[in-house]
Amino acid sequence: MTAAPIGLEILARDGAARRGRLITPHGAVETPAFMPVGTQGAVKAMAPAELWDIGYRMVLSNAYHLAVRPGADLIAEMGGIQAFMGWKGAVLTDSGGFQAMSLASINKVGEDGIRFRSHLDGRAMLLTPEAAIEIQRKLGCDIMMALDECTRYPAEPAYARQSAELTARWAERSLRARTAPNQALFGIVQGSVYSDLRRTSARQIAALGFDGFATGGLSVGEPKPLMLEMAELSASFLPADKPRYLMGVGTPGDLLAAIAMGYDMFDCVLPTRNARNGCAFTSAGRVSIKQSRHLKDSRPLDEHCGCRTCASYSRSYLRHLYRAGEILAARALTEHNLFFYASLMRSAQAAIASGTLGELRRSMPEAADSEGMEEE
Amino acid sequence: MTAAPIGLEILARDGAARRGRLITPHGAVETPAFMPVGTQGAVKAMAPAELWDIGYRMVLSNAYHLAVRPGADLIAEMGGIQAFMGWKGAVLTDSGGFQAMSLASINKVGEDGIRFRSHLDGRAMLLTPEAAIEIQRKLGCDIMMALDECTRYPAEPAYARQSAELTARWAERSLRARTAPNQALFGIVQGSVYSDLRRTSARQIAALGFDGFATGGLSVGEPKPLMLEMAELSASFLPADKPRYLMGVGTPGDLLAAIAMGYDMFDCVLPTRNARNGCAFTSAGRVSIKQSRHLKDSRPLDEHCGCRTCASYSRSYLRHLYRAGEILAARALTEHNLFFYASLMRSAQAAIASGTLGELRRSMPEAADSEGMEEE
Repeated sequence: MTAAPIGLEILARDGAARRGRLITPHGAVETPAFMPVGTQGAVKAMAPAELWDIGYRMVLSNAYHLAVRPGADLIAEMGGIQAFMGWKGAVLTDSGGFQAMSLASINKVGEDGIRFRSHLDGRAMLLTPEAAIEIQRKLGCDIMMALDECTRYPAEPAYARQSAELTARWAERSLRARTAPNQALFGIVQGSVYSDLRRTSARQIAALGFDGFATGGLSVGEPKPLMLEMAELSASFLPADKPRYLMGVGTPGDLLAAIAMGYDMFDCVLPTRNARNGCAFTSAGRVSIKQSRHLKDSRPLDEHCGCRTCASYSRSYLRHLYRAGEILAARALTEHNLFFYASLMRSAQAAIASGTLGELRRSMPEAADSEGMEEE
Repeated sequence: MTAAPIGLEILARDGAARRGRLITPHGAVETPAFMPVGTQGAVKAMAPAELWDIGYRMVLSNAYHLAVRPGADLIAEMGGIQAFMGWKGAVLTDSGGFQAMSLASINKVGEDGIRFRSHLDGRAMLLTPEAAIEIQRKLGCDIMMALDECTRYPAEPAYARQSAELTARWAERSLRARTAPNQALFGIVQGSVYSDLRRTSARQIAALGFDGFATGGLSVGEPKPLMLEMAELSASFLPADKPRYLMGVGTPGDLLAAIAMGYDMFDCVLPTRNARNGCAFTSAGRVSIKQSRHLKDSRPLDEHCGCRTCASYSRSYLRHLYRAGEILAARALTEHNLFFYASLMRSAQAAIASGTLGELRRSMPEAADSEGMEEE
C-alpha cells in the first residue's frame, strides 16, 4: 500500500480532546473542524471564495445528490468536485446512504445495497457499497465515506443489530472496492441508541483499515442526552491516531461536547438552514430576525462578531430583507452563522492548546445550544 | 434658493451624446450611468459592497415599495435609505406611481392622486404628488422622482393627452411640495407614443424648475422602433445642462441608442431579472445557461469578461447550480450581468470621450439586443 492519502497530526491535547491538523490532497485542515454542508456541490447562499475567506478549508458534499444530478461522470470530466465547484480546499462526500433512505420515494435495503427511485425523476437505482465508492472515486473527493445504513430512530434492538451488522459487512466491501490511492476512506459506526450495539459496531469498524472513522446514526430524533452518550461511547473505541468524525451534529454546545470526547470533524445543516429560516447564532444566544423587537434595532446581529454581515447591516435592515424575501437575507445570515461556527472551532482549537476547553464550554450560553428557535 | 442639490458636469460630447459627472450628496457618478434596480432596498442577490466593487455609484429603489414595507418613517429613523442599506453611494427613488398602477389590486387615478390598496396587506392608500415627495424626503434619497401617471400601452390619444396633462399638473404640485434642499427632484415626460403629446409634455415638464428630467412611459409594450422614436423626440426638448434619465430601458443596444440621443441615466430590471431566469449578457450575445449545450462546457460565460463569476465558474457548473435551484446561480449570473452593464457604460463613456460612440454601437452583437431569450 502507498502512503496514506490523509494524515492527522495531533498538535495538542486537553483531556480526550485533540487539536490537530488534517493533511489532505487539497491542503491542510486545522482541527477540530466544522465542514459547511454543500449537498449539491454548493453551500447554500455562499460563494466558495467566501467560505475560504471565513477560514474553511474543507466542505462536505453528497455523493447521492451529485450522482443523481449532474452525474459523477460529468464531474469527473470537469476535473473533479473541487475544480467543478471552484473550491480551493478539500471535499468530503457523504456516500448518500442517508439520502437514499430519506429522500427516495421507494427504497428497500437488502444485502446488496439500497434500491430506490431518484427523488428527481423516479429513475430506479441500486446503491451498493461498491457503487458508492465508484461514484466518490469519480467525484475525486479527498475523503470518501463508506455506504452505511443510517438506522432510523426509534429502532427495535433486533432491527438495529441487523442494521449495524449489515453496515459492517458493507464497510468491508467498501474497503475492497477502493481503487484510488489518493482518496481517503472513512468507516461509519452505527448501533442506534443501544450501548452494546454501539460497542460492537465501533469495535468492528475500528478493526478495519479505514483512514478515519465516523459515528453515524445520531441526531436522527433521539433525546440529546442519549445522543451525547452514544457519541462518547462510540468515540472511546475509535483509534486515537486517526481522525474521528461525528456526522450531522450539531448545535454549538453539542460541538464543544463532542470535541471534549475527542472528535475532530463535524458537519451539520444547522448554521446554513437556520440562517435561511431567519435564525442567527450569536455570542448571546440565538436571534430570530423575524421578531418585531428587531424592527428599529440599529445594532448588528452580534456586537462581538467580526463578520461582514455584522460590519455591514443592522438587525432592522436584516429583518426587512428577511420579510421581503430578499436573497441577501439568506446570504447575510448564512455568512454570519458560518463565521460563528468557524470562530467556535478556532476558539476550541486555542482552548485545547491552552488546556482551557472546560472553561470555553462553560462560557457557551445556554440559549445558543437550545434546539428550539425563539418564536415571534 | 440654495445651491442645486446635484450638478452635472459635461466632460465630453459625441454628437448628442454626453459623457459627464453627476455630483450628488452621496458622491460622484460617472455618466452615462446605469442604475441597478433595488426595488425593496436591495439589488436582488447582490450585496451593496459587490455593487460598489463592480463600479456602481448609484442605485435605484422604489418609494412605493419602501413606504409599504418597512415604511418611510422607519427608514428615516435608521438614518435614511443609504445608511439602512449599508450603501456608500447615491440612491434615486422612483415615486412608485408605476407600482401603484401595476401592483395594487384596486386603483383609481384622480386629480388628487392614485388611490390603491397595498399589494401586501390590502390597506387603502392614496398616493398624491405631495405624499410621494414626503415619502422620498423621509427616505433621504439623493434624487426624488415626481409622481406621474405611467400611461398604459396601448392608450387612445384622448386618454394619453389627459394623462400627460395630469402628470404635468402633478409635476407642478411636486415642485411646490418639495422642502428638502439637499435632495434633487426630477420631472417625468409622458405622452405615450404620440409625437404631439410627447412634444407638449416634454415642453411643459422642461419649463419647470426640476434638477433633472426623465422620459417615462416607454418600454411598456410598444414596438421598439416607436420606443426609440419617442425617447429621441422627448430628449430633444430636455435642457442640455441638466441630467436626462430614460426610465426602464433596456437592452445593451437600447442603452447605446439612448446614450447617442443624449440620455445620461438608465435603470432596468433586465440584467438582474434575466440573471435569475438563467440568462447572461455576454460580448457574444445572450447565453441561456439552462441549455443542454452547456452541460460539459468548461468555459466561463464570457471569455472576454473580467468579472468574478467568469473567473470562478464554468458554464457546466453554472448550469448545474441553476438546475439545482441553488442561490449561487442567481448570485453568479446577477453579478456577471451587472458587471457587463457596468462595462458597457464604461465603454460608452470612453467612446464619447474619443468620439467613437458610433463604432461602439456598430460593434454590439445583434443577439445582445434581442428581447427574446434563447430557449432550450
